[in-house]
Amino acid sequence: MQEILAELTRNEVFRVYVFWSGVLVLKMLFMSVFTGMTRFRTKTFANPEDLVSKKLKVKFGDEDVERIRRAHRNDLENILPFFTIGFFYIFTSPSVYFATQLYRAAAISRLLHTFVYAVVVVPQPARAIAFFVPLAVTGYMAVSTILYFL
Amino acid sequence: MQEILAELTRNEVFRVYVFWSGVLVLKMLFMSVFTGMTRFRTKTFANPEDLVSKKLKVKFGDEDVERIRRAHRNDLENILPFFTIGFFYIFTSPSVYFATQLYRAAAISRLLHTFVYAVVVVPQPARAIAFFVPLAVTGYMAVSTILYFL
Amino acid sequence: MQEILAELTRNEVFRVYVFWSGVLVLKMLFMSVFTGMTRFRTKTFANPEDLVSKKLKVKFGDEDVERIRRAHRNDLENILPFFTIGFFYIFTSPSVYFATQLYRAAAISRLLHTFVYAVVVVPQPARAIAFFVPLAVTGYMAVSTILYFL
Repeated sequence: MQEILAELTRNEVFRVYVFWSGVLVLKMLFMSVFTGMTRFRTKTFANPEDLVSKKLKVKFGDEDVERIRRAHRNDLENILPFFTIGFFYIFTSPSVYFATQLYRAAAISRLLHTFVYAVVVVPQPARAIAFFVPLAVTGYMAVSTILYFL
Repeated sequence: MQEILAELTRNEVFRVYVFWSGVLVLKMLFMSVFTGMTRFRTKTFANPEDLVSKKLKVKFGDEDVERIRRAHRNDLENILPFFTIGFFYIFTSPSVYFATQLYRAAAISRLLHTFVYAVVVVPQPARAIAFFVPLAVTGYMAVSTILYFL
Repeated sequence: MQEILAELTRNEVFRVYVFWSGVLVLKMLFMSVFTGMTRFRTKTFANPEDLVSKKLKVKFGDEDVERIRRAHRNDLENILPFFTIGFFYIFTSPSVYFATQLYRAAAISRLLHTFVYAVVVVPQPARAIAFFVPLAVTGYMAVSTILYFL
């Protein structure tokens, strides 16, 4: 590996960012697998070529499948911008300690968000909290980045 | 901060890219909040655990909520790839002036896209223009990147 | 261009990653255009301001449009996390040869996925294979990254 990559790899904020983002990528892949498994369990297939038996018809709107899809879309809306802004935030010279708390809080909250939304439905405000913590972190990082690069 | 990060942070094209991308991240977070507010205003909740009153039922297809969701999905489809290709484009050694115009045109157009789509509905071709300018910028950056790294 | 960017640009794994990711960005832009064209062909417009003739009404659920939208959403769920994890993976010092196979296999599979899903519908398991190959690559890269940055 080149010196430049090695140097970045030793940066502590970068390391924390990459670790937690890697965890969230894995979590998002799980959503795809989870949706697929639930489609088979509930026999909810959106395409004619997916029907595993000739007796089945395409079907939409199964409650379990739709719930996982809503959780997954919420990931797209929130985790994907986090990957981008979390990377930018490294360049604003945050303290390692503070940056670590932010990345960790956002990532763990998003893991909990999936759990209380799509795995075991927990009454509110569980999901609301798990939603707003990463939103606040991402918003803070965005404002910090904008001001730094103004 | 390490020397390597400091050096990247002084790169003018990188600075412009990060600034406008940061603005677009903030804009996307706004969509989440805007959807939430509109769900409360129109009492359109997609999950039983979200119902704020026992008299309410889960509800789908509210026109205002759906319009914001369409605008938001359009962001996912267009802004998120822009974050990626905008980063790659830095490495193709564009002129600072030209690259600045591209990032700025794409970002401001996406702000206008949200405005004319989801805030105040403006007749076409307002949204079409606000859609095609960033699409052309992103397409140009993608082709430039592919040819450069071929 | 600064020395630091030039050095990264000479990194072979980085080059392969950027090239194939650029191709996938272009592919995703094509989905937007393809959806738009299919909306015009089938006269399926989701917004009143989009209706090109006064005789038309907003319309949802056209089968062709919905199929392209499902393929597009699948791109958001799978290609966008690939952009992030593919970048991280560079820092785990993979061999150039092996990394090249991974990026290429994932990217070409996603091109085929679009083709068999939205262009010419091919019976299963065509789409399933084109879906699982990139999923496995992305999952492998995520696990490698997490272990490396633990």
